[in-house]
Amino acid sequence: MTQALASALRLARGRRDTSLSELCDFLRIPSVSSDPSRRGDVARAAEWLAVRLRALGAERVAVHPTGGHPIVCGEVAAAGGSRPTVLVYGHYDVQPVSAVDDWETGPFEPEIRGDGLRARGASDNKGPMIACVAAVEAVLASGTMPVNVRFLFEGEEEIGSVHFRAFLEGHRELCACDLALNTDVGMLEEHSPTIYYGLRGLYRARLRVRGPSRDLHSGGYGGVVENPIHVLSELVAGMHDGDGRITLPGFYDSVRPMSSEERREMASLPRDDAAYLRDSGAPALWGEPGYIAAEREGARPALDIIHTFAGSEKASIPAEAEAIVTVRLVPDQAPDEVHAQLTRYLGDRAPATVRWEIGDSSGSPAFLADRNAPGVRAMARAMRSVWERDPVFYRSGGSIAAVGSIREVLGVDSVLTGFSLPGDRVHGPNERLHIPTWERGIDAVIRFLFCLSEEPAFARADGVAAPGCSA
Amino acid sequence: MTQALASALRLARGRRDTSLSELCDFLRIPSVSSDPSRRGDVARAAEWLAVRLRALGAERVAVHPTGGHPIVCGEVAAAGGSRPTVLVYGHYDVQPVSAVDDWETGPFEPEIRGDGLRARGASDNKGPMIACVAAVEAVLASGTMPVNVRFLFEGEEEIGSVHFRAFLEGHRELCACDLALNTDVGMLEEHSPTIYYGLRGLYRARLRVRGPSRDLHSGGYGGVVENPIHVLSELVAGMHDGDGRITLPGFYDSVRPMSSEERREMASLPRDDAAYLRDSGAPALWGEPGYIAAEREGARPALDIIHTFAGSEKASIPAEAEAIVTVRLVPDQAPDEVHAQLTRYLGDRAPATVRWEIGDSSGSPAFLADRNAPGVRAMARAMRSVWERDPVFYRSGGSIAAVGSIREVLGVDSVLTGFSLPGDRVHGPNERLHIPTWERGIDAVIRFLFCLSEEPAFARADGVAAPGCSA
Repeated sequence: MTQALASALRLARGRRDTSLSELCDFLRIPSVSSDPSRRGDVARAAEWLAVRLRALGAERVAVHPTGGHPIVCGEVAAAGGSRPTVLVYGHYDVQPVSAVDDWETGPFEPEIRGDGLRARGASDNKGPMIACVAAVEAVLASGTMPVNVRFLFEGEEEIGSVHFRAFLEGHRELCACDLALNTDVGMLEEHSPTIYYGLRGLYRARLRVRGPSRDLHSGGYGGVVENPIHVLSELVAGMHDGDGRITLPGFYDSVRPMSSEERREMASLPRDDAAYLRDSGAPALWGEPGYIAAEREGARPALDIIHTFAGSEKASIPAEAEAIVTVRLVPDQAPDEVHAQLTRYLGDRAPATVRWEIGDSSGSPAFLADRNAPGVRAMARAMRSVWERDPVFYRSGGSIAAVGSIREVLGVDSVLTGFSLPGDRVHGPNERLHIPTWERGIDAVIRFLFCLSEEPAFARADGVAAPGCSA
Repeated sequence: MTQALASALRLARGRRDTSLSELCDFLRIPSVSSDPSRRGDVARAAEWLAVRLRALGAERVAVHPTGGHPIVCGEVAAAGGSRPTVLVYGHYDVQPVSAVDDWETGPFEPEIRGDGLRARGASDNKGPMIACVAAVEAVLASGTMPVNVRFLFEGEEEIGSVHFRAFLEGHRELCACDLALNTDVGMLEEHSPTIYYGLRGLYRARLRVRGPSRDLHSGGYGGVVENPIHVLSELVAGMHDGDGRITLPGFYDSVRPMSSEERREMASLPRDDAAYLRDSGAPALWGEPGYIAAEREGARPALDIIHTFAGSEKASIPAEAEAIVTVRLVPDQAPDEVHAQLTRYLGDRAPATVRWEIGDSSGSPAFLADRNAPGVRAMARAMRSVWERDPVFYRSGGSIAAVGSIREVLGVDSVLTGFSLPGDRVHGPNERLHIPTWERGIDAVIRFLFCLSEEPAFARADGVAAPGCSA
């Protein structure tokens, strides 16, 4: 270990309680991006971040307005122009709080229980973001910046990163970098540091079925007019066959098969079907036959209705029924292609008793990264040092629009990792952050920055040895 | 026409504008029984009615508390003990206002547009109730009461008449009568006065499907865990076969077939399939093959999901999905029997990936009346005089719990009629009352009270001629 690295690790440890307390302040801001009444809170979280970045010594810190929630930028360019630049991505917005009664603590009143920090956003993504901030702060305080860092924190990840891509397109110089670091995914388990080399894409749309021109008394019309709830139910039910395969016409045509090597690797992941079953709390697993759960999550597509709403307590046949359909995509499925398949499916199946429409459709394709890229190698070395074991390479079933946008607009890939655990209840009630893992995460990011500078691809033109991670 | 009858009709006409204005006052009270925040308004509507009954000269007027919303009683006993007593039933509670944006006028700001009075409750049931009140007032003011009248107005019809039956059981003497008059149904069309001889029963229950123990991130679990929305959709979709027949096991076993005479009569009703289609605004009709719409409405059972709700905008597989199922029953289906069929259906069909439960179940059987009862005959005569044509005899698809309770507890049948029209949008936005029909309704109730006293079944023991409707 170099002296500079040792010093940075020591400084971060010394600041641990302060960093945790700062994270709690951040978590107290209910930055729910999907809730218009929380607009002011989202803006407050952005301001909080800007203050935090300035405090650690970042320059060019600014809260950039967008058509929606702002984007916060800042940079630490102390390593100089000949050194590589890492773009540290994060999102400061959080999911809404549903099932309020199921929360054991106030969602925006962070509370430490055992080794967990309870709060909405603790794991997704405020905790990991603040780990990156604390790491850069410690490295800068050590007096030796091995690489340059740019921060890019958005406030719309949980609502589909609506304005993120346009922001990148308008700020290419501000965001220029050699690679990105994204800690918005998690670890397979406490002792398995994890690097994600894949993400599923996401197609999303609102599906509406209209029957009668108004709500009808269900006494006067029950048995006479087809109920849009029944029609929607039939359409939804028909989207899977009895085995769990998706029935949209041609749906699997462009799904890229896994190699047998990848399937072997997936079969030996530390997360087997029993772990999925335990973590989900479901009575049984389910899905496409012939694939284990890890494959179905990361490498096979999935269709889910995430929301359905129709009618009311009053005894009526409702005029319409609505659902939000999402499809998690894998290479080489295109969102437009799935939109066309869904349209064809509805055209083929919807009965003449209703009219239907698809609205608000959006989509982004899946992501597969090179597992031999310098960033991935540097993160693997850093993780090996912290956890004393090789990281697991994983394909995530989630979707992060920013990863695709950064690839397409800035031309760089993201090192995808994170410090949340499967039991952290991301998006659900009682979200928490496992504090010891979060602390290891700070160490890992510090080491990553130093290891990165040793990567041959980033060798200095002048041949002067970079401040690295090895002695 | 007797002088007494002519005088009553004249008095009612003279008071027409006052009655309409009083109805508007009544409609301004948002007595939504299903909305806990409207509890005070419901109570206010009950008090308003008590004041109104006292003003017309009713005695023993009282607002009786129940476990829920109060019941208002009062009587006009001027005809004396040897004359028959009519129990005038009504409900002063209204349906909630959904689809607020679709209302062209304020739901609780009654407004006359053309010959319609727009307001929630105008047709269901405040308008028809006030028609009865105005009729009794005019008859009493004429100086000749041919029969005795008791008023019985409940505030829980729209939420299943929760406390009505228990109230009758506790107040048998107060409610004792020879027959009941219920104007909570409507007319087939403006020129077809209608007497209903049947009502469907109603079974209602909440169906819940539970999958994972909490909402799961749909990226991490999509394709791995079965979505409770999908399972609920399959269960709902499977409740009808491709032809629109209900598939609950044994469902049609106790459905009483119609006689060929009744089917002939139904085929000649002034409401054919084209009228149902037009009134519903649906692209096409639907339902059990082999029956016309009027038969499917009145004499065949129907199953409808009136409410479904699950998930949210956030990208999760929800922990559970819910639906409210209602079944409109015909003779001789028992609610308990349908509950058992639904339970068996779910047991047979629900997959092992979920748990399910049925909650909040309730039910009341269907009602079929004797079309030759004195009350029905008297109403038919009254209607013939007002509309100058024979009334239509109709089986309604609706369900009125009070009719069953009155039969079972008080031992009398209800004369079921009403003064709302198919286009009155009962339970929907822009509910209205057709004012000319409402005025004919007042006349019809006045005539009904006089005609009733001429029915042989109610002949006076002392042989003195009753004040009747014929000269």
